[in-house]
Amino acid sequence: MHTPAAKVSGYVVLLIVQIVFLLLFWLFVRYEKSAMPSQLGAEDAGSANEHVSKYPQFQDVQVMIFIGFGFLMTFLRKYGYSATGYTLFMSALVVQWSVLMKGFLHMEGGKISLSLESIIDADIAAAVPLISMGALLGRTTPIQLLCMSIFEVALFAANEYLALNVLSICDCGGSITVHAFGAYFGLAVALMLRPSSDQNEAGKHEGANYASDIFAMIGTTFLWVYWPSFNSVLASGSGGERAILNTFLALAAATVTTFVVSALVSHENKLDMVHVQNSTLAGGVAVGTVCNLLLGAHGAVLIGIIAGTVSVLGYRYLTPWLTSQLRLHDTCGVHNLHGMPALISAIASAIYASLATADDYQSELQDIFPAMVGSNSTSSQIMGGLGRNASTQAGYQLFGIALTLLIAIGGGILTGAVLKYTSFRNLQKDEQHQDEQYWEVPALENKEE
Amino acid sequence: MHTPAAKVSGYVVLLIVQIVFLLLFWLFVRYEKSAMPSQLGAEDAGSANEHVSKYPQFQDVQVMIFIGFGFLMTFLRKYGYSATGYTLFMSALVVQWSVLMKGFLHMEGGKISLSLESIIDADIAAAVPLISMGALLGRTTPIQLLCMSIFEVALFAANEYLALNVLSICDCGGSITVHAFGAYFGLAVALMLRPSSDQNEAGKHEGANYASDIFAMIGTTFLWVYWPSFNSVLASGSGGERAILNTFLALAAATVTTFVVSALVSHENKLDMVHVQNSTLAGGVAVGTVCNLLLGAHGAVLIGIIAGTVSVLGYRYLTPWLTSQLRLHDTCGVHNLHGMPALISAIASAIYASLATADDYQSELQDIFPAMVGSNSTSSQIMGGLGRNASTQAGYQLFGIALTLLIAIGGGILTGAVLKYTSFRNLQKDEQHQDEQYWEVPALENKEE
Amino acid sequence: MHTPAAKVSGYVVLLIVQIVFLLLFWLFVRYEKSAMPSQLGAEDAGSANEHVSKYPQFQDVQVMIFIGFGFLMTFLRKYGYSATGYTLFMSALVVQWSVLMKGFLHMEGGKISLSLESIIDADIAAAVPLISMGALLGRTTPIQLLCMSIFEVALFAANEYLALNVLSICDCGGSITVHAFGAYFGLAVALMLRPSSDQNEAGKHEGANYASDIFAMIGTTFLWVYWPSFNSVLASGSGGERAILNTFLALAAATVTTFVVSALVSHENKLDMVHVQNSTLAGGVAVGTVCNLLLGAHGAVLIGIIAGTVSVLGYRYLTPWLTSQLRLHDTCGVHNLHGMPALISAIASAIYASLATADDYQSELQDIFPAMVGSNSTSSQIMGGLGRNASTQAGYQLFGIALTLLIAIGGGILTGAVLKYTSFRNLQKDEQHQDEQYWEVPALENKEE
Repeated sequence: MHTPAAKVSGYVVLLIVQIVFLLLFWLFVRYEKSAMPSQLGAEDAGSANEHVSKYPQFQDVQVMIFIGFGFLMTFLRKYGYSATGYTLFMSALVVQWSVLMKGFLHMEGGKISLSLESIIDADIAAAVPLISMGALLGRTTPIQLLCMSIFEVALFAANEYLALNVLSICDCGGSITVHAFGAYFGLAVALMLRPSSDQNEAGKHEGANYASDIFAMIGTTFLWVYWPSFNSVLASGSGGERAILNTFLALAAATVTTFVVSALVSHENKLDMVHVQNSTLAGGVAVGTVCNLLLGAHGAVLIGIIAGTVSVLGYRYLTPWLTSQLRLHDTCGVHNLHGMPALISAIASAIYASLATADDYQSELQDIFPAMVGSNSTSSQIMGGLGRNASTQAGYQLFGIALTLLIAIGGGILTGAVLKYTSFRNLQKDEQHQDEQYWEVPALENKEE
Repeated sequence: MHTPAAKVSGYVVLLIVQIVFLLLFWLFVRYEKSAMPSQLGAEDAGSANEHVSKYPQFQDVQVMIFIGFGFLMTFLRKYGYSATGYTLFMSALVVQWSVLMKGFLHMEGGKISLSLESIIDADIAAAVPLISMGALLGRTTPIQLLCMSIFEVALFAANEYLALNVLSICDCGGSITVHAFGAYFGLAVALMLRPSSDQNEAGKHEGANYASDIFAMIGTTFLWVYWPSFNSVLASGSGGERAILNTFLALAAATVTTFVVSALVSHENKLDMVHVQNSTLAGGVAVGTVCNLLLGAHGAVLIGIIAGTVSVLGYRYLTPWLTSQLRLHDTCGVHNLHGMPALISAIASAIYASLATADDYQSELQDIFPAMVGSNSTSSQIMGGLGRNASTQAGYQLFGIALTLLIAIGGGILTGAVLKYTSFRNLQKDEQHQDEQYWEVPALENKEE
Repeated sequence: MHTPAAKVSGYVVLLIVQIVFLLLFWLFVRYEKSAMPSQLGAEDAGSANEHVSKYPQFQDVQVMIFIGFGFLMTFLRKYGYSATGYTLFMSALVVQWSVLMKGFLHMEGGKISLSLESIIDADIAAAVPLISMGALLGRTTPIQLLCMSIFEVALFAANEYLALNVLSICDCGGSITVHAFGAYFGLAVALMLRPSSDQNEAGKHEGANYASDIFAMIGTTFLWVYWPSFNSVLASGSGGERAILNTFLALAAATVTTFVVSALVSHENKLDMVHVQNSTLAGGVAVGTVCNLLLGAHGAVLIGIIAGTVSVLGYRYLTPWLTSQLRLHDTCGVHNLHGMPALISAIASAIYASLATADDYQSELQDIFPAMVGSNSTSSQIMGGLGRNASTQAGYQLFGIALTLLIAIGGGILTGAVLKYTSFRNLQKDEQHQDEQYWEVPALENKEE
């Protein structure tokens, strides 16, 4: 309303970005061989089918990104257009950018290869700025969010490359590279954008109403049911089935724990929708890095119980403290849903890595802990491994999370500074947590409320 | 609000249950061989993939349980937190319990084998107490519901074992063992918890509003689209495709019939959302037990037409009569959606079993009617069968539903008596059908309405 | 309320239609061989599994039809029961009718073969009258809609047969035969039912409220995430993977473009939910016909950018003009979401067909452009093709869309005339865009608003 010129220039920049993407696709991207016609007929169809066997899991991840994240964030009563709309906008931008960014890191012959795998990776990359958006929900303009996401995804791709390809850590469900990165990056941005101390009280629109809470449950529930697909979509061999089973059990245990702990610590022992919408999912994050390991059912359930407990206690005690003491407003509580559970997952990965042996993982060691192949403790000497032993691998797991935190927080502080101190328009206190600044809202609505 | 102490002790009990589950998982549950690394590499991955080929159908069932049931029950205007929340809570508890209970019935070497099949079974088991919850919706505390579900699922597992493994009946889509069991168990509990005659009028919150009815349509529609997966997930061979086709056609026919009959019997010939939300699904229940049999398209459509008609008439005439005469309040009308259609399915199964021949079913007789293998009328003499003839199998089908009704109603009466006469807290009339007793509800909401 | 007799006779006709369907299924429809038991055991199960390998994509299409279309149309604030309910009613009727109609066109030995493919085709056919319903939303009775859908689907099946089997055009994602047909048929009906010039202003209920807009986003988002399945479900060979990749990228590019263009052309540069709900999907339509061709990533992105732009500009400038000048009320703007993007897709198909060579498509030419097999320019001389060259194929693509427009508009005008001038009851101005005429609406609701 106030500064149409700033809006126009922001949107024009995003249009230019889209056109640059078009040029980069034209210059660099080609279909992978599996997506090209070949001379063989019937046989070929078979191998093409095999190549897209991950397609159902990809579609589950699509629902998580677009419906899951989008609706989970509709809990604010006057910010539903933004929650669902910006999720669509940001994800549509990021998936293209991710195909390019991750492609540049794995080019062959100067060309980027496009296949189903590229868009699975792209959807996973979209989760990263969506998590950060949760920390900032209602406190930024869409232009700020979108510009942040472009920088964040480039940094995410670099950090992921470091963690998986250089440090060779295991992170099957992405709790370290996706959840911890997205959460702490977003929190660092939120810290930079924190209000002055005389404006630290909650915004007047910063709350749910009955319908918005139920819309949010659409997001929660789809995230819940499809989380096993998110964690297993990149697993291979029997690790795929373990990833499904462990994620399912961790989610179930975290859910029961969330309800119980929520009732025990809340006012008048009443259940709190914030906990139910978020902490029930903490089991999926906490089991992420280790979901394809030999946890056993009890390992998965234990991780779920711990994650549910930590997450609810975080919402109940830590978030209010961060808000009042550090003026760090974490609108969706991503620290409790993504941040701390991801730390739990990283610690669990160090523990399980320290117990891993080649006898346990057999031929799958190559997939899961490639750097451990060829160590003295393995019976089979397969070439290509670094021969790391189990304790060293555990150390690398901890190094991986530490490096991720460093890069995420550093990148977030930098991004936050740019958003705050350059020519980006910032929202005023009374413009926050409502759609009206950037959306046509039905006139009737304005009168009614 | 009134008795925090009772709440606290209830939730503590559920926490203890979760910890006991953890111990039982630790002591008894192990990954199945397919989920363990093996020495072979590439070849193995292939067989692992095959093992999880039911995964997409499992995910459809997940959506039915958590989104489908959860949102179908949001139709009450002040009970949406409970509908979606308790669905999540109950299912998360029951899936763990089902892995254990059904595992104990099929242990090998003192260990329970954990695989994708275990969690498919677990999701199906979760449907049972969710159906019962529909009959009781808004009239119990969450503690009562959860405790009921633990007992009910144990009884369900026993009854299913009797019906499928001892009586050897066919019940591919679970209409007998899941739908009839869940519905009549729930109705028996509801009968025990019925109000005194001076409190028999409808509760003041017992109704829908415009938004809550649309939320409920989310549940209805997801149940509709994924029902073919529910009915076919346990089918094998060509029976899988028949289960999909028959379920699809039965649902379509039931839906058309529901709309027409609803308009014809309703006040001013207006369509009734209760019928649309529920009776459209009756075709899926009524075709359940027989969905993998050779019904032909016309058989499936006929079953759908009958189910839609019976279900709408049930809602229009039978439910009000049960409420006024027996004081049996069936909040969601599960008798019309699950109860009577399941009886139709059982009767259909007796009819089709009586017509089954080994020539029709060829090698699949073993899967579908294993007890009929080796009967005089079969041309191929395969070992292992009981040699039942078609009429005897038909009799067993009827015996199966009768036994299921007996166990479900008996178990429900017992459970209802425990919930009513022991130290469980019961809801007062004015505490029913609203979230506020057990949930933090936005303050604004209370003022507005 | 006014004419219960007309309602009763309308619903009775639909009941008779359902019973006629039952008879036709009984007389003509048989399971395909893959859905019948065979003598072989294990081997058979394998081939049955392969036969249903499209099942996950079918389920995605199911969600698009029932949830996607149904909820997209809930944006009207007092028409949500109708939007979700009539979608269910119409689809349930049409899927049965489609199995029969398309079956009659491909009978073998006097029988229609029923398989998974039949119900995939049936779901796609259901999209056609649902698109037309979007043009008419709120302006017809359910009886009119259902009768229209029966005629429309028969005409659709005939036109599709002409286009694909006689003209041999390519139309993998159905933009010509499904989207263009449904949109222009519906627009022609809307033109016939247009109001007199003194009643041309917008109806008083013709608008969204905050909650109804968010319900509509459920539809939008599910259509978005599953559109790659819609476009690829009938593709074969490596074309399946290309269809997925191209659709995904076209949607992403259309979405970014939609947001930017919406902000740039709207009042005060605010985003418009109508654009976000609809134009974000235009990329899926515009890439439909060509989705399995060798577009390259840049081709898909370019099509998406064009489609998003055209669609938003259509909503902003063309729709108001059509309403004021032609009194053509297109409630959902299907011309902007389905009509114009489908024309773009047809033009693109002519361009890409004119560039197609047998060297590019290798053995897949047979699947994609069967009429081009055996042309002089091909190196491999496979029998059965018509030997069309690339330019001729391009001409046929344009002939295909022209014929489709002719049949759709002609059929729509005829249907509209029947709906208007025969004994069908038409809605009065003040009865439009509200559920109350045909649905029981909660009493509370009427008081509140």
